Amino acid sequence: MDTGDLAERVMAGERRALARAITLVESARADHREAATALMGEVGKAGRQALRIGLSGTPGVGKSTFIETFGLFLVERGLKVAVLAVDPSSARSGGSILGDKTRMEQLSRHPMAFIRPSPSQTQLGGVARRSREAVALCEAAGFDLVLVETVGVGQSETMVAGMVDLFLLLLAPAGGDELQGVKRGIMEIADILLINKADGPLKDVARRTCADYAGALRLLRKRSQDPEGFPKALMVSAVEAEGLKKAWAEIEALAEWRRKTGTWERTRAEQARHWFEEEVRHGLLRRLTEDKPLAARMRALGEAVAGGEVSPAEAAAEILARLG
Amino acid sequence: MDTGDLAERVMAGERRALARAITLVESARADHREAATALMGEVGKAGRQALRIGLSGTPGVGKSTFIETFGLFLVERGLKVAVLAVDPSSARSGGSILGDKTRMEQLSRHPMAFIRPSPSQTQLGGVARRSREAVALCEAAGFDLVLVETVGVGQSETMVAGMVDLFLLLLAPAGGDELQGVKRGIMEIADILLINKADGPLKDVARRTCADYAGALRLLRKRSQDPEGFPKALMVSAVEAEGLKKAWAEIEALAEWRRKTGTWERTRAEQARHWFEEEVRHGLLRRLTEDKPLAARMRALGEAVAGGEVSPAEAAAEILARLG
Repeated sequence: MDTGDLAERVMAGERRALARAITLVESARADHREAATALMGEVGKAGRQALRIGLSGTPGVGKSTFIETFGLFLVERGLKVAVLAVDPSSARSGGSILGDKTRMEQLSRHPMAFIRPSPSQTQLGGVARRSREAVALCEAAGFDLVLVETVGVGQSETMVAGMVDLFLLLLAPAGGDELQGVKRGIMEIADILLINKADGPLKDVARRTCADYAGALRLLRKRSQDPEGFPKALMVSAVEAEGLKKAWAEIEALAEWRRKTGTWERTRAEQARHWFEEEVRHGLLRRLTEDKPLAARMRALGEAVAGGEVSPAEAAAEILARLG
Repeated sequence: MDTGDLAERVMAGERRALARAITLVESARADHREAATALMGEVGKAGRQALRIGLSGTPGVGKSTFIETFGLFLVERGLKVAVLAVDPSSARSGGSILGDKTRMEQLSRHPMAFIRPSPSQTQLGGVARRSREAVALCEAAGFDLVLVETVGVGQSETMVAGMVDLFLLLLAPAGGDELQGVKRGIMEIADILLINKADGPLKDVARRTCADYAGALRLLRKRSQDPEGFPKALMVSAVEAEGLKKAWAEIEALAEWRRKTGTWERTRAEQARHWFEEEVRHGLLRRLTEDKPLAARMRALGEAVAGGEVSPAEAAAEILARLG
């Protein structure tokens, strides 16, 4: 495969090339992996940066509708928007979020938008690498904004937080009790909480919920790298396209502040370093399954250990010695 | 070091040899690790099995008092009891649970009991291996019962559950709201919930709490490998030594059932296989820090990645190629 040519076309903004490049980085095949590594090196030279935004929210909170409305709001402002989905659970269920583009009907047809559903992957490590590289590919393709959507489970949110510049959490209007259902971990990841469905009969509940969350955020220790007032809670209505302007203004203000203070660059540098180390760790562990004779010996030793014939430590020492 | 001699003495039940052997398996030094591996192979030949019991509970629930009382109850029945503590948090705090044996004054002086505090370790993987091997050493030394105490945080409980035959969760009497504070994960690990402090003014609250938990347990899916009625909730009073006989009878009944049905052996076999695989993974990852030139190159590449000079994938490929 001519990865140089593919990189050129991605950087020229060709959507078909971008889609093909993402398919390449999604592949687990060894030769594809090699080509993907070369490709990532090529596109990295573009030096383009998009605003990377993570978005999470439990099912039913209106994520698809929000992305559709917010995405259209952004493209109408002349911004090129890419939407990627990260769903580690799709490995098990076989399904995928964002699989059905009809839920973002207008945005998916818009020439300035690019939507890519979550692939089926077998492990979180694979999902992480694919997602991170897909984000970088969208950046190289000249998108101004890359929205990384994930489901409301802790592990995938932490992973997505490690590849974006800021993180949004979409919440539904709720009573005081349900408030406690939001895990402290995600509250600490989120930069802006968006209380959705602030429309119709739910508007009052949304207002109270927003105030409750704002109060909860004040109780959390302020992060030293944040400007005054962040993290903050805002109301939006995806169906009525309300509050989007305010939300976008806050996002821009926070991004600007982080750029100015150097937080942006420092965070990106740390993220890159982290992914490098993760990739080494995963690559190392992959050998245990990819080296067929070794994997066979692992299985045989596993049986011997299970049968009490050899201790776990002795068996492990043999495998590690084989690895040189 | 003559590990053959040390193994002999451990298997002869020499307490000093046991303490020395545990110190050896706790060491991170490469030569110690090698000796520990040889030692574990030796003692494994004894083929002795103790009843391994995991015990968890949040601070303040009366864990130390319970272990003191329950331990004395058991040694008075002629059973040799070993108590080990697993505290991954001690790596950070520098402190350790069970560090103060004065909290188990009588038990720690009893000739049929052996108490070992949690060591300071730098990583969960190290804590896991040390604990697992310490349990096996206590078994080889002829203890009838090995109690593995841990603190009420999810990760360490899962780890301990992976090295014991059954798991106890000690709980305090509490109102209905606090009930929800117990994570579903730990409820699914526990075989028997013990509501402690069922004495004095708290006795009535304890009774209600016990009924509440019993109700909650019925809502959880029954585990296929469990007999009718398990997991179950019981009341105990550590300070008044109440309910211990009943608790012990239930523990024995469950253990007996698992032995008879083959669940015991199957679980132990799976646990051993799991620890072998874990040990291979940890051993593999250790190379990244123990190989000095490699670690130096990792740091240099980490800087280059952070500076955007090279992609994480390319940098990782270089390190993996070096590892052959």
